[in-house]
Amino acid sequence: MKLYDFPPAPNPRRVNIFVAEKGIEIERVMVDFPAGEHRSDAYQLKNPACDVPMLETDEGIYISQIRGVTRYLEEVYPDIPLLGRNPTEKGLVEMWEHMAFINGILAVAEVFRNTGKGFVDRAVVGPHNYSQSSELAERGAARVANFFEDFNQQLASNEYVAGDGYSMADITTLVTCDFAKWIKTEIPKECEHLRRWYEKVSARPAVVDNP
Amino acid sequence: MKLYDFPPAPNPRRVNIFVAEKGIEIERVMVDFPAGEHRSDAYQLKNPACDVPMLETDEGIYISQIRGVTRYLEEVYPDIPLLGRNPTEKGLVEMWEHMAFINGILAVAEVFRNTGKGFVDRAVVGPHNYSQSSELAERGAARVANFFEDFNQQLASNEYVAGDGYSMADITTLVTCDFAKWIKTEIPKECEHLRRWYEKVSARPAVVDNP
Repeated sequence: MKLYDFPPAPNPRRVNIFVAEKGIEIERVMVDFPAGEHRSDAYQLKNPACDVPMLETDEGIYISQIRGVTRYLEEVYPDIPLLGRNPTEKGLVEMWEHMAFINGILAVAEVFRNTGKGFVDRAVVGPHNYSQSSELAERGAARVANFFEDFNQQLASNEYVAGDGYSMADITTLVTCDFAKWIKTEIPKECEHLRRWYEKVSARPAVVDNP
Repeated sequence: MKLYDFPPAPNPRRVNIFVAEKGIEIERVMVDFPAGEHRSDAYQLKNPACDVPMLETDEGIYISQIRGVTRYLEEVYPDIPLLGRNPTEKGLVEMWEHMAFINGILAVAEVFRNTGKGFVDRAVVGPHNYSQSSELAERGAARVANFFEDFNQQLASNEYVAGDGYSMADITTLVTCDFAKWIKTEIPKECEHLRRWYEKVSARPAVVDNP
């Protein structure tokens, strides 16, 4: 098995923390993002979405998208479950991971990719070019502010994002909080529950080892 | 178990087809979308995302987001699997369902919600108000065109979206094709593989019963 990786970026970091939490050893193939290797014909043949992370199984099957990679790994290495321990938890983890992705990761990315000078005509990840939109950057900033408040609310009465077990929903929420620093935004002081949770999960060895 | 539903909308339709394919009988609770019931305090207490579909389990747990609802149902009713039959398929179904959602459903919604007169200040589903963006509507239309081409390419060498088994990835792709009609867009004539697949999956009883 091989994991195609680019550790400095937030999305690969989500899988790197997931893999570290499970204690799995996987061979890494570094993809040269700055040089545009993820958009080369050779890479696109393996992954039509032209992104990382991507997994190559021992049978030579390519699985991309974080949902695809983490589901495969959860099935093959079920011992330390991060996608829920029973049907209800599994549903709740998917629910909250989705909300963290849509309202967190995507909202920060709306700001980052629509304002960064390195992303002119590259406002959306993938094989196609799209122009930057200042309207979308502005909306993204408003969405990030709401994300912090909404997840603070959820963590007011839950130890972890999806309930009482640490899961992939925590990993995506944590990576969102750190990714927000790239757009010079931090968890607001008044979001005390989110801040308490952030300190706790940031101290986990799997997170410390994947800064 | 109860499914909070509003059948005319595309996202509830994804779950309604899923449920029909599995042959499950679930009590429905109709949510009065036109009257804004999904944004009432009572509903938001059950589902902070203020959307449908949402599931209420027999234990009184509320699970929202299509990923949450379908994962729970797949675990409780595994007999007719729609999220993959083995680890590799499970990874590929998540991968392709994610791509259909991001590049299909969300792209059509970018056009629909940023142009519709009924969505002024309601450009994003959920509890928060966001203004419409003509830039995003324009980008959405370009993304829908690329979605059709990319999925046509995938279906040129695969019987179904995620490979050789019908799955939730097909349901989301099918609902995207029908949702696109709401923005007066159809599968282009030259996307012959996508059109062939569309005819076939549209004839499935679970789809015919959930128009």
